[in-house]
Amino acid sequence: MCLPGIFIVTLLTLSIPAVHGGKVLVFPQDGSHWINMKVIIEALHSRGHSVSVVRPSDSWYIKETSPHYTDEEFFRSFVSRQIQIQREGKSAWTRFSLDMELKDRFSEMHRKVCEMVIQMLENKQLMQSIRETKYDLVLTDPANGGGVVLAHYLNVPLVFNVRWTIHGEAHFAIAPSPLSYVPFPVAELTDNMIFFQRVRNFLVYVIRQHLYKQTVGPHYSALVSRYFGPEVDYFSLFQAADLWLMRVDFVFEFPRPTMPNVIYMGGFQCKPAKPLPQELEEFAQSSGEHGIIIMSLGTLIGQFPHDVADEIAAAFSHLPQKVIWRYKGDRPMPQNDLLGHPKTRLFVAHGGTNGIFEAIYHGVPIVGLPLVFDQPDNLSRMKVKGVAKVVDLATLDRNIFSQALQEVLDEPSYRMNMQRLSRLHRDVPMEPLDTALFWIEFVMRHKGAAHLRTESYRMPWYSYHSVDVMVFLLAVVLFTLCLAKTLCPSLVFLLWRLFQKNK
Amino acid sequence: MCLPGIFIVTLLTLSIPAVHGGKVLVFPQDGSHWINMKVIIEALHSRGHSVSVVRPSDSWYIKETSPHYTDEEFFRSFVSRQIQIQREGKSAWTRFSLDMELKDRFSEMHRKVCEMVIQMLENKQLMQSIRETKYDLVLTDPANGGGVVLAHYLNVPLVFNVRWTIHGEAHFAIAPSPLSYVPFPVAELTDNMIFFQRVRNFLVYVIRQHLYKQTVGPHYSALVSRYFGPEVDYFSLFQAADLWLMRVDFVFEFPRPTMPNVIYMGGFQCKPAKPLPQELEEFAQSSGEHGIIIMSLGTLIGQFPHDVADEIAAAFSHLPQKVIWRYKGDRPMPQNDLLGHPKTRLFVAHGGTNGIFEAIYHGVPIVGLPLVFDQPDNLSRMKVKGVAKVVDLATLDRNIFSQALQEVLDEPSYRMNMQRLSRLHRDVPMEPLDTALFWIEFVMRHKGAAHLRTESYRMPWYSYHSVDVMVFLLAVVLFTLCLAKTLCPSLVFLLWRLFQKNK
Repeated sequence: MCLPGIFIVTLLTLSIPAVHGGKVLVFPQDGSHWINMKVIIEALHSRGHSVSVVRPSDSWYIKETSPHYTDEEFFRSFVSRQIQIQREGKSAWTRFSLDMELKDRFSEMHRKVCEMVIQMLENKQLMQSIRETKYDLVLTDPANGGGVVLAHYLNVPLVFNVRWTIHGEAHFAIAPSPLSYVPFPVAELTDNMIFFQRVRNFLVYVIRQHLYKQTVGPHYSALVSRYFGPEVDYFSLFQAADLWLMRVDFVFEFPRPTMPNVIYMGGFQCKPAKPLPQELEEFAQSSGEHGIIIMSLGTLIGQFPHDVADEIAAAFSHLPQKVIWRYKGDRPMPQNDLLGHPKTRLFVAHGGTNGIFEAIYHGVPIVGLPLVFDQPDNLSRMKVKGVAKVVDLATLDRNIFSQALQEVLDEPSYRMNMQRLSRLHRDVPMEPLDTALFWIEFVMRHKGAAHLRTESYRMPWYSYHSVDVMVFLLAVVLFTLCLAKTLCPSLVFLLWRLFQKNK
Repeated sequence: MCLPGIFIVTLLTLSIPAVHGGKVLVFPQDGSHWINMKVIIEALHSRGHSVSVVRPSDSWYIKETSPHYTDEEFFRSFVSRQIQIQREGKSAWTRFSLDMELKDRFSEMHRKVCEMVIQMLENKQLMQSIRETKYDLVLTDPANGGGVVLAHYLNVPLVFNVRWTIHGEAHFAIAPSPLSYVPFPVAELTDNMIFFQRVRNFLVYVIRQHLYKQTVGPHYSALVSRYFGPEVDYFSLFQAADLWLMRVDFVFEFPRPTMPNVIYMGGFQCKPAKPLPQELEEFAQSSGEHGIIIMSLGTLIGQFPHDVADEIAAAFSHLPQKVIWRYKGDRPMPQNDLLGHPKTRLFVAHGGTNGIFEAIYHGVPIVGLPLVFDQPDNLSRMKVKGVAKVVDLATLDRNIFSQALQEVLDEPSYRMNMQRLSRLHRDVPMEPLDTALFWIEFVMRHKGAAHLRTESYRMPWYSYHSVDVMVFLLAVVLFTLCLAKTLCPSLVFLLWRLFQKNK
C-alpha cells in the first residue's frame, strides 16, 4: 500500500490460516525498541495469531527495502559526539547545544510519526482494509504515540509493550509515584534517599515533565484534536490503555506502587543459551580456567573513538581472560548464548535494558560503560545491588578500566550477588514471555480488560487528591465554630434568664 | 504444652517426614477466618510442608477438646440482636449501645490475643522448642496482631493471609489509596463517586481509623513496647511483612493501586463441584426445568428471628423452584458442590467473601441479606456489577423478598453478568491457591521477599509526601526573589554611576 508524501506506510503481515488465532495490529517504535517488539510478534505468530506491522518507509530496523537510516545515522553520530565532548571536557555551552540538538531531533521524530498517522487515517483505501480486517487489538510501544491514536480511532483494545512513554518512565503515568522513595529513572538515585537526593529527584522529575510537554506534547495535541475534537487530550487516550506490559521486574526496578493492569515481563527476551558455533566454542574453551569476557555496547555505537578503544584494548591485554568484543559492523554476535556460556566471567555493557536483563538472567556481573539516555541510570541500579562496576567514559584510561575489570573478576561478591538476582528473577510462576502472551490473549478473549483499569485519570487533580473534599470539610468546621461563637453568648444569656426566673 | 493462666496455647502440628518440606508456624484468626486459613494449611501440608498452628484453649473453630464458645456465643447473639433492633426500628441510642458493646468486645478479643502472646513468649520451654524447630516462616491472618509480633520476636519471614487488619482494610495499610476513587470498604461506595460520596468516603475512612486506633491499638502498643522497646510501633512491624496474600481479586475489588508484594488469591477456596450425595442429587433433579435455590447465611447466624424466617419461607413457597436452606445446626451443607450444580439458579447469601467468591466461581447470581461487618459492602460491590439484588433485613417481608427473588430469576442480565464475572475470574495464568502456595514457597526458598517490599513506611509523613522538599524549594525561590529585590536597586544605581562616569 503506497501513500503520497514522505512516508510509505506498509503493513507487513505475518498471517496464519488458523481459525482460532486473533488479529493483532502493531504500531512499533524504531531502533533498539524494535528488538524486543519483534520477540513478542514472533511469539504471537508462532501461537497462531496473524500480526500486521505498521512500517514507515524510512524505518531503520523494520526493514523491507532500501532503508534511509536517517535517524540511525543521527543517533550514532550523536553518541560519538557525546563521548568526544565528555572526554575533551568541552564547555557547558557545547554540551547544552548538543542537548538542544537532541531535543529538536526528538521533536522532529514525533512530528514525523504524527504526519505518518495522519497519512494513514486519511488514506481511505488503507483504513477500509484495516477496518475490514477487524483487528482484535493494537499492540504498541508508546515511546511514540502513533499506536495510541490509531487504537482509539479504530476503537480497538490497546496493549502497551512499554518502559518509556512520551511523558517519561511509564509507571509515573499510570501508578501513584511518591517522589520520596520512587527514584525517577534518569536521576540515578535509589529508593533510599537522603534529603538532598529527594530534592534532586523532585527537580529532575519536574524539569523532565516540562521538557516532554514542550518538546513532544504539541504534535500529539494537534493530532488528537484533529480527530477527536479539542476537548480530548492525548494523555487521557494514552492512560486508557487496557494493559501495560512493562519491560522491567522488581529485580531491576525498586519496589514501588503499581496498578492491576500493569504486567511485568522484564527479561521476556531471555532464554537458555544454545551451543556456540564451533569456532567460538573452541575460542571459549581455549581460555582455560580464566574464562572469557563479553563486550558489547549495543545498537547505537557507530564510530567508537579510537583513543577509548585503544585504552580498552590495552586494559584487556593485561588480563589472562580472553575477550569477545562486538566492536563494529553488522555481523551479529550470539550475545545470549555467549552470556550463558559456563566460561563467561564478565559482561562489559553500555547499560541498555535488553543487555542488562540478559546479564541478570545468566548471572554474569557487569562492568558498565554508560553512553546516553537511560543507560547511566540502569547501570546505577545494578551498581547499588552490588552486581556492577560503572566506569565513566569521560575519564576512562587503561588503568581505570583495568582496575574496574580486575575488581569485578576478583571480588566474589559481584558474581554471588548477580547469581542471587538471577535466582530471584528466574523463580517465577510463569515465564515472562508466556505471561505477556497470556495477557495479550486475555485482552483478545474478553475484548479489553476494563475491570483492571481505573478511570481516575478523568478526574481533575484537585478531586483526585481530595483537595476539594478537604476544603469543604474545613469550611464546614469553620462555619460551625463561627456559628457556635455567635450563638453562644445569646444562649448563655437565655439560660441565665431562665435560671433567674425559676429561682 | 500447657501454660498457666486462662489460655492453654497448643501447637497443633501436621508434620511430614519429608526432607525437602518447609516448616510453617501459623497464627490464625478465629471464626470464619479460620475456614480459609485451613484451606491453605491443608494445601501446604499436602505439598510436604509441616505446619504448626498456635491454638488458644478457648478457640471456637480450631477445636481439639471441649471448646468454650465464648466469642462464638457473643457474635451469634450480637447478630440476632442487631437484626431485632433493625426490624423493630429501635432508637439511635439502642443502636449506639450495641455498637459500643461490639467495640468493647473487639477490644477484649485483642486484649486476650496480646495476653496469649505474652504467655507464649514468657514460656521458656515452649519458646525453646519453637526456636529449635527453626520455622521457615510465620503465616498469619493479621485480623489480630499476634502473628506479627511472634514473627518479629523469632526473626522469621512473615506472610499474611489477609483482607482485614487491626487498622481496617489491608490495602489501605500498604498501598497508596486515593480516597477520591478508592472506596473504603464498609462505606458501600464504588470507584465512581460524586462529590458528596467522596466526602462520605473521606469521613468514613477518618472515623474508622480513629476507632481502630482507640479500640485495638493500645493493646498492641503495650505488647510491642514490652518486647521491642518503646521506640518500635506495631504498625511498622506489621508493614514489614514479606508478602500479603490478599483474599480478593479485581473481579470483586475495584481497580486501585497495589504493591509488588501483594499477591491476589481471591477465590482460592473455590474448586469444581463434586457430585452431590444421592439424596440431594435426587432432590435437585426433581426440581425440573425450574431448578433450585441455595440459601446459607454463613457461620454467624445462630438464632434467626422466627418472623423473618416465616416471611422468607412464605416467599419461597410461592416459587416453582426448590430450595435448599441451611437454616441452623452443625450439619454442614456441601455449599460449593451445590453452587456448582447445573440446576442451581440463585444463591441467597449474607455476603461474606467466602460465599461471594464461590458464587462468582460458579456463576450463580445472588439475592443478598447482609447482616453485619463487611457484608453490606461486599454485597453493594456485587450489586453495582449487576449480579446481585440486596434486600434490607429491617424491612424484609414476603412481598419484598419474593420480588427480589423473582427479579434475579427472571431478568437474564443477572445471570449473564455473573457468568461474565466468572469467566474473567477463572481466566488466570495460575489457579489462585497455586499462586498463593508458589509465593509462600518462594519466601521459604529465598528467606523473605525483600526485593518486593518498600521500606517507605519508615519515613515520617511529611517526608513521604515530599512536604519537606516542597517547603525547602519554596523557601529557596522566596529567598532568591527577596535577594533580587534587595540587590536590584543597588545594582541599578551602580550601573547608572558607571554609565555616568563613562560618559
